[in-house]
Amino acid sequence: MEGSTAQAAGKTVLRVAAISGSLRRASANTGLIRAAAEICRESIPGLEIDHIDISSLPLLNTDLEAGGVFPAAVEAFRARVRGANCFLFASPEYNYSISGPLKNALDWGSRPPNCWGDRAAAILSASGGSGGSRSQYHIRQVGVFLDLHFVNKPEAFIKAHQPPKKFDDDGNLVDPETKEQVRKVLLALQALALRLQLGKPAADSEV
Amino acid sequence: MEGSTAQAAGKTVLRVAAISGSLRRASANTGLIRAAAEICRESIPGLEIDHIDISSLPLLNTDLEAGGVFPAAVEAFRARVRGANCFLFASPEYNYSISGPLKNALDWGSRPPNCWGDRAAAILSASGGSGGSRSQYHIRQVGVFLDLHFVNKPEAFIKAHQPPKKFDDDGNLVDPETKEQVRKVLLALQALALRLQLGKPAADSEV
Amino acid sequence: MEGSTAQAAGKTVLRVAAISGSLRRASANTGLIRAAAEICRESIPGLEIDHIDISSLPLLNTDLEAGGVFPAAVEAFRARVRGANCFLFASPEYNYSISGPLKNALDWGSRPPNCWGDRAAAILSASGGSGGSRSQYHIRQVGVFLDLHFVNKPEAFIKAHQPPKKFDDDGNLVDPETKEQVRKVLLALQALALRLQLGKPAADSEV
Amino acid sequence: MEGSTAQAAGKTVLRVAAISGSLRRASANTGLIRAAAEICRESIPGLEIDHIDISSLPLLNTDLEAGGVFPAAVEAFRARVRGANCFLFASPEYNYSISGPLKNALDWGSRPPNCWGDRAAAILSASGGSGGSRSQYHIRQVGVFLDLHFVNKPEAFIKAHQPPKKFDDDGNLVDPETKEQVRKVLLALQALALRLQLGKPAADSEV
Repeated sequence: MEGSTAQAAGKTVLRVAAISGSLRRASANTGLIRAAAEICRESIPGLEIDHIDISSLPLLNTDLEAGGVFPAAVEAFRARVRGANCFLFASPEYNYSISGPLKNALDWGSRPPNCWGDRAAAILSASGGSGGSRSQYHIRQVGVFLDLHFVNKPEAFIKAHQPPKKFDDDGNLVDPETKEQVRKVLLALQALALRLQLGKPAADSEV
Repeated sequence: MEGSTAQAAGKTVLRVAAISGSLRRASANTGLIRAAAEICRESIPGLEIDHIDISSLPLLNTDLEAGGVFPAAVEAFRARVRGANCFLFASPEYNYSISGPLKNALDWGSRPPNCWGDRAAAILSASGGSGGSRSQYHIRQVGVFLDLHFVNKPEAFIKAHQPPKKFDDDGNLVDPETKEQVRKVLLALQALALRLQLGKPAADSEV
Repeated sequence: MEGSTAQAAGKTVLRVAAISGSLRRASANTGLIRAAAEICRESIPGLEIDHIDISSLPLLNTDLEAGGVFPAAVEAFRARVRGANCFLFASPEYNYSISGPLKNALDWGSRPPNCWGDRAAAILSASGGSGGSRSQYHIRQVGVFLDLHFVNKPEAFIKAHQPPKKFDDDGNLVDPETKEQVRKVLLALQALALRLQLGKPAADSEV
Repeated sequence: MEGSTAQAAGKTVLRVAAISGSLRRASANTGLIRAAAEICRESIPGLEIDHIDISSLPLLNTDLEAGGVFPAAVEAFRARVRGANCFLFASPEYNYSISGPLKNALDWGSRPPNCWGDRAAAILSASGGSGGSRSQYHIRQVGVFLDLHFVNKPEAFIKAHQPPKKFDDDGNLVDPETKEQVRKVLLALQALALRLQLGKPAADSEV
C-alpha cells in the first residue's frame, strides 16, 4: 500500500493543518507536531504540515461574531483550517477529556460555515496515565458533528513519562521508536485522505 | 452527488449486513431493518440488505473457540459479516449504551481474524428519550477498534414514542417521513462505501 | 424525602458554585443559572447560588503558573470553587461535547491542588437537538478525575428551540414547567450534597 | 478515614454483589472477584462478596417477560442484585467497551422495577492496552441511568499482560501489589456505601 500511496502522493500534495492542544512552551504535544513536520519533510513526499498556533484565539463567544465577521485571530485560524486537506491533532488529556484550548479551537472552526467538514484526521497524544486515550474518543465524538473521518489504525497513545525518555526538556521528541510511531500515523492519514479524495464522485468535487 | 453515486451503484452491488440490537418480535429497530430492505429493493439500485438475526448467538465466551473453531451459529454469523461490503446497525438504547445482544454480536465478529474491518457503516436507532443517541456514540467508539468508517451525516435518532405514530404494533415502520430519513441514511452509506472502495489504491485491493 | 431534606437544609446552608458554559450575553444557559438563583431565594431554604463568570479566565497554559502563583483571574476563580459546597453546571452542547470555555474553567480549577474534589454536582443544559445530553456525559467523565459526585436523577435536557417558548430574547427562563424542572434538579443536588456531608465519617472532616 | 470506616463497618455488614464480565474459565477478571472475596474475608470486616455468575442469563429479550415473570435464571439474578448493598464489577474491555455478557446482565437487572438503584459501585478491570479504562467509562454512563454512585478514586486499570506476572494460568491473582490495589478499591467502596447509607435522611430509608 505504501508504494501506491507514495506514487499518488508524488502527484497530490496534501496540506495537513496541525494543532496542539497544549499551549505551554515546552509541551510534548507541540513537540509531536514539530516532529511530524520534520518527518514529512524528510520522508513523506506529498504531505506538508501547517502548524497552527491556537493560543491567540479568544474564548468562544458568539457575540464576537458581529455582522457575520469573526475577530481577526479567528478569521485567520478559520482560513487555515478551511484551506487544509486534512488534520492532525496533538491532544493532551486534561481531566479525562480534550484540553480547553483545543476544544475552543475546534468550536471556532465549526461556527457556520463549518471549516472542518468531510476531511481525514488523525490524533496523536502525549500524556501520562493511558497516554491520552480518553481525550481522543471525545475528539472523535466531536468529529461526528464536524464531519471528520478519523484514521482508526494505528492509534498513538504516547506515555510521556514512561522510559525510555521520549522528550527533551524543550518538548522535542527524541525517541526513535516514537518517531516511527508518528510516521506510521502520518502515512495512515495520507492514505485515508487520498482514498477519500480519489473515491469522491466527480460531481461532488464541484460542490 | 446522488446522480453519480447512483451511476456507480448501477455497476457495483453492495451487500449491507444489517443487524438489529433488539430481539423482541415486535421491535421497532428490527422494523427499521425491514423498512431499509424494502427501500433498497424499491428505490436504491446497487444496495442489498442482508438481515442477520443474532438471537441464536451464545454469550461470548472464548472457551467456546476450541481449537480455533467457533460454535456453528457463530461461524455462520461471522461468514455473513465477512462477506458484507458495509454494515447497517439498528441500535436500541439500553441503559444509555449498546444493547447486550448487539454488543455480544459485535464482539463475536471481532474475534481474530476480525470480520468487520475497513468497511463503511451506518446506524439507525428507534428509542425513547434522545432517540438512541447515547448508544450510537458507544458503537462508534467500538468501531474504532473494529476499524469501521461511519457515516457522519445524516444521523438518525428516531423518537419512537413521539407523534406522529411511526411504527405499528408489529414494529413495522409506517411513517413516510421516517422512511425518507432511513432512505437518506442508506444513500449516505452507499456513497461512503463506494467512495472508500473506489479510492482504495489498486495494490491494496489485492491484500 | 423533601421534608427531611428541607429540615436539614434549614440548619445547613450550602453554597452552590454555578457556572455557565456559554459566554454570550443572551445565553439560555446563563439564563438557567439566573433562574436557579431566583428559585433558591424564593423556595429552597438552605441553598444559595454563587454565579461565577468564567469569561475572563485566560486559555489554560501552565506556563502562567509562575512559581505556583496563578494569574489573578484564575486565583479568584479557584477561591470561589474551593469555597463552594457543591456545583451547578449550565452546559451548552458545542459540537457534541463540553464548550471550550467551560472545559477551560474545569481545567483551571483542577490544577493542583484540585479545587473541585469530593463534592456533589448537577448539570443543566439548554441546547438544540438532544438538549445537550452529549455534553453532560463528557462532563461526567471529567468529573471522575475531578472527584465529583453527580446527581443521577433527574437529568435536565432542555430543548431550547422546541415549543413552548422557554427563554425570552435576553435568555431569561420564562416557562413555568422548565422552572419546575430546574427546581427538582436543585432539590436533588441539595439532597445529595447533604447526604454526602452527613454521611462523612467525623475523622474525615478534619482532613 | 480508614479508622472510622472500619468502626462503622464493625456494625454494618455490607453485601457486595460482584460480577465478572468475562465468562471464560481462566479469566483474570473473574480472578479479581475471587481475590476480592478473599481480601474481604481476611482483612475487611463488614464487607462480604457475593460472587454472581451471569453465564446462564439468556440474551435480553423482553418477550421472555411473559406476564411480568422473568425466566428463572433472570429472577434469581435480579433477586441477588436487589439484595445487595453495593456492587463490584470486574470488567474486561471488549472492543473498547463493556463486554456483551456484562452489558446483558446490567440490562436484565434494570428491567422495571430497576434492581440496581441508588447504591455505591466500584469497577476493576484486567485487560491489555489501557487496562480496561474505556470499558469503565461506558459502565459509568450506564450507571447514570441505573442510578449507581461510583467510587471515583482509586480507579483500577490492571494491565494483565505487563510484568510482573499478575495472574496464574487459572486466572488467580498472584501479584501482591495488585492485591493491595484491589484492597484499596474495596475500602473506598465500603466507605462510599456507608457514607451514602449513613447520610440518607430517615424518611428516605422507609421508601
